[in-house]
Amino acid sequence: VKVVVLTGGGGGAKLVAGFAAQLAGDELTAIVNTGDDFTHLGVAISPDLDSVMYILAGVLDPRGWGRANETFHCLASLRELGAESWFQLGDRDLAVHLLRTAALARGDRLTAITRQLCAAFGVSHRVLPMSDAPRPTWVHTPEGRLPFQRWYVEHRARPRVVAVEYEGDGGASAEVLAALDAADLVVLAPSNPYLSLGPILAVPGIRERIARHRVVAVSPLIAGEAVSGPLARMLHELGAASPDVAGLVAHYGDLVRTWVVDERDARAVGVAHVATDILLVDAAARNRLAAEILRL
Amino acid sequence: VKVVVLTGGGGGAKLVAGFAAQLAGDELTAIVNTGDDFTHLGVAISPDLDSVMYILAGVLDPRGWGRANETFHCLASLRELGAESWFQLGDRDLAVHLLRTAALARGDRLTAITRQLCAAFGVSHRVLPMSDAPRPTWVHTPEGRLPFQRWYVEHRARPRVVAVEYEGDGGASAEVLAALDAADLVVLAPSNPYLSLGPILAVPGIRERIARHRVVAVSPLIAGEAVSGPLARMLHELGAASPDVAGLVAHYGDLVRTWVVDERDARAVGVAHVATDILLVDAAARNRLAAEILRL
Repeated sequence: VKVVVLTGGGGGAKLVAGFAAQLAGDELTAIVNTGDDFTHLGVAISPDLDSVMYILAGVLDPRGWGRANETFHCLASLRELGAESWFQLGDRDLAVHLLRTAALARGDRLTAITRQLCAAFGVSHRVLPMSDAPRPTWVHTPEGRLPFQRWYVEHRARPRVVAVEYEGDGGASAEVLAALDAADLVVLAPSNPYLSLGPILAVPGIRERIARHRVVAVSPLIAGEAVSGPLARMLHELGAASPDVAGLVAHYGDLVRTWVVDERDARAVGVAHVATDILLVDAAARNRLAAEILRL
Repeated sequence: VKVVVLTGGGGGAKLVAGFAAQLAGDELTAIVNTGDDFTHLGVAISPDLDSVMYILAGVLDPRGWGRANETFHCLASLRELGAESWFQLGDRDLAVHLLRTAALARGDRLTAITRQLCAAFGVSHRVLPMSDAPRPTWVHTPEGRLPFQRWYVEHRARPRVVAVEYEGDGGASAEVLAALDAADLVVLAPSNPYLSLGPILAVPGIRERIARHRVVAVSPLIAGEAVSGPLARMLHELGAASPDVAGLVAHYGDLVRTWVVDERDARAVGVAHVATDILLVDAAARNRLAAEILRL
């Protein structure tokens, strides 16, 4: 079976790890949001790609981003020198950023770089950036637009969201298109629809290919609340039909065939769905959820 | 009194710190070799500039390079990922490299970047790169030429030196020329004449300005041996008149008015000299030597 999961970092990465526990390397492809990618102090950072790679490599910190047993001595030194220090640059994490930056400067594609990094980390499942071209996500606020990381990390996702913009016109890579063409099942991970999956679906070539498939979506809301992040508030701010699972269902419309939701949200879905425990508290929970989706 | 010291890292940096202990910020300028500068994993590294800056900031590690209380977690991660790890990239040190790299990418001059870094470290004396243009030093060996850091660090200075090449045609900055024009005393620090001071003297505009001054040179040899590094061997390999202080004296010729040497080498000098203790074992030793030179 060939499974493709569209994902951001965080909860989506956990579900990818759940699938990885039961699928062979060539059976699972994660197509990962790169709208959060940015260059910081000259260093190319791909937060969601790294979260997925780190969780599959078993080195993701339990906090949900960056590497376990991380230190921040470079960051402390940057802070002492008066440089920007709002982004948590870990010392071990920096190794990945430096290798990625140097490879991009050589002209390598992000897809190839990610493959090499994954190989170095012993990750056998496929991790693909949604595009090799920069496609930054901008968050429009009442005070103007902010690059995603500035809004999310530096401003702690506080400024009200007026609109989300997906910049860039780069298409999907040949690897992404081939993975979607070969897929038996496409899964939308429990990631933010505007900030994580929206950027992927906006890449030319991806949405229409997904629409040909049986698509299963795992809700990023539980009992109407986001497990983490500002989603519940954003559904309201961005004018969703309702700030709950029904709003998500309306947001994706026909694209999703089957919803996987928490039992407390089942009544609101109104379309084909499975109600189960979707809180990915640990490896057992994510493995069980992935297995349940594979049985659908 | 306006003192200009030409220096590499290591022993030269120690003498600069000795002068700094007795001169005001505007009385001391270090003109620093940047022939060792290189780009490693996309990061711009200036080893000698950093050694001088770090010793003046009081954060140089006692080993003579890099920062005190340093960790190497990024480097360990690079090594795990199969990347080149022969260069000792410290985590705190990386902060300086990242800031320098980002500023160079913005188009800032190395002189301005160094001034800002020094200010951030609370260094009040002037630290100037010998040139704002890249002027890499190449070490020619029987197997071909190597960039300085490859030869010195990766190959541990083992390959025989056939010749030393100073590449690049960039001139001295306005700041370097002004400092030399205003100098009351020019000091050649106890640095390698081929690898540290040679690159500085090869920068168009520097040698002829220095020749107008009273130049004092501190010998990098003690009892015929280099305090550290491959100098004694190189004097032989590069065909100096003799592999000792007399060879150094012949190497610089008329450029140096007064030599400061170890008592054991005094007989070999043959020109105006002061024999004293030049082993810079600690702050007291370097302060005493600098004071002695200022009294000349």
